Amino acid sequence: MQVVKKPFRVAIEGNVGSGKSTLIKYFEKFKEVETNAEPIETWRDLNGHNLLQLTYSDPHRWNFAFQHNVQLSRLNLQSKTTNKDIQMFERSLQNNRYCFVEMAHDKGLLSSPEYGVMCQWYEYIEANVDIGLDLIVYLRSLPDIVYTRMQRRNRPEERTVKLDYLADLHEYYEKWLIKKYYNLPCSLLVIDVDKDLSENQLIDLYQTYEDKILGKMPVL
Amino acid sequence: MQVVKKPFRVAIEGNVGSGKSTLIKYFEKFKEVETNAEPIETWRDLNGHNLLQLTYSDPHRWNFAFQHNVQLSRLNLQSKTTNKDIQMFERSLQNNRYCFVEMAHDKGLLSSPEYGVMCQWYEYIEANVDIGLDLIVYLRSLPDIVYTRMQRRNRPEERTVKLDYLADLHEYYEKWLIKKYYNLPCSLLVIDVDKDLSENQLIDLYQTYEDKILGKMPVL
Repeated sequence: MQVVKKPFRVAIEGNVGSGKSTLIKYFEKFKEVETNAEPIETWRDLNGHNLLQLTYSDPHRWNFAFQHNVQLSRLNLQSKTTNKDIQMFERSLQNNRYCFVEMAHDKGLLSSPEYGVMCQWYEYIEANVDIGLDLIVYLRSLPDIVYTRMQRRNRPEERTVKLDYLADLHEYYEKWLIKKYYNLPCSLLVIDVDKDLSENQLIDLYQTYEDKILGKMPVL
Repeated sequence: MQVVKKPFRVAIEGNVGSGKSTLIKYFEKFKEVETNAEPIETWRDLNGHNLLQLTYSDPHRWNFAFQHNVQLSRLNLQSKTTNKDIQMFERSLQNNRYCFVEMAHDKGLLSSPEYGVMCQWYEYIEANVDIGLDLIVYLRSLPDIVYTRMQRRNRPEERTVKLDYLADLHEYYEKWLIKKYYNLPCSLLVIDVDKDLSENQLIDLYQTYEDKILGKMPVL
């Protein structure tokens, strides 16, 4: 009989520029941790089409196809087996459903029928595939702080991202994780990254939460 | 230990007006058969939106959302458990992928990125969910015959369906099942319904194929 051990699954959540990749990079060195960055490359190359770029340039036209593709790429990551004790994901299916899909619908980038289709697919996945998380780590920061950080690092695809967008996304994160509009079926660790910390200072901060993030110490 | 018996899974395929529902209705009376008509009601009421109607009225705008919804509704049917020996489906996920999605893409109703997203989802489903069929029954008929039959029965939603559309769909059925453009991993029974048969004559015809359709006699 083969016993498949279930890994401890952690999603690292937060706005653009909140320090998710720095955190994930920090945990890459732990041999018991499998890290999964956002599957951004699959959005950039869908049979030769850059769906991410299309969505940035014409969100009304492409948002639905993009969300549909994001959902699948996250499903592929979040349901794969591993021999590591801990799986760490940069954002999650749950985040996609309760922040990005909600926001796109409210902003009119997903029509109500498209929103309905997305939600029904999410319900199917939730009922039929084990996508459960054990912990959500929320890197919480005010929009203007992450905006400054984002501008400083100057990633090509983020050049068109406006402060308004970050403020909106922040609001949806808050609804999801702090105000708890939806059922949150796992532990939540909120890390305040609301100071304009350097990368080294961020790493020092993550270190203090290390045992909680890795599920070795309970999150109260 | 609970042993789950795998049912014999039959998809009934064919153009609009080829006699699929008459066949399925005939087999409803067999106690070992679970019949599944097309889940058309779920397309007519998606949280109050009639996606079927939207797609008929503006296929360029709605085809992708519609196909996405059809895929999910068929997945729900085709992966459900049963205590019957035989599961019978009116059309299938495979049919959706290899006829309707291909046709919509070729006709420009699904853009290439949308088509790519649909196909990747299909690949995911095929790799992760048992949607395998044991038999495909193809009710094969020339487009002008089914057109006459469709006009005679006068279903409201079919009033806008043109002969051209039936001719196109026929071509995609032929590519899929007769010319075998794609891998067909199950048995195929082709029933010629190319004469303008009455409902009673159709039932007589189905009766002669009964044992093959129910998997009690091999299809050669």
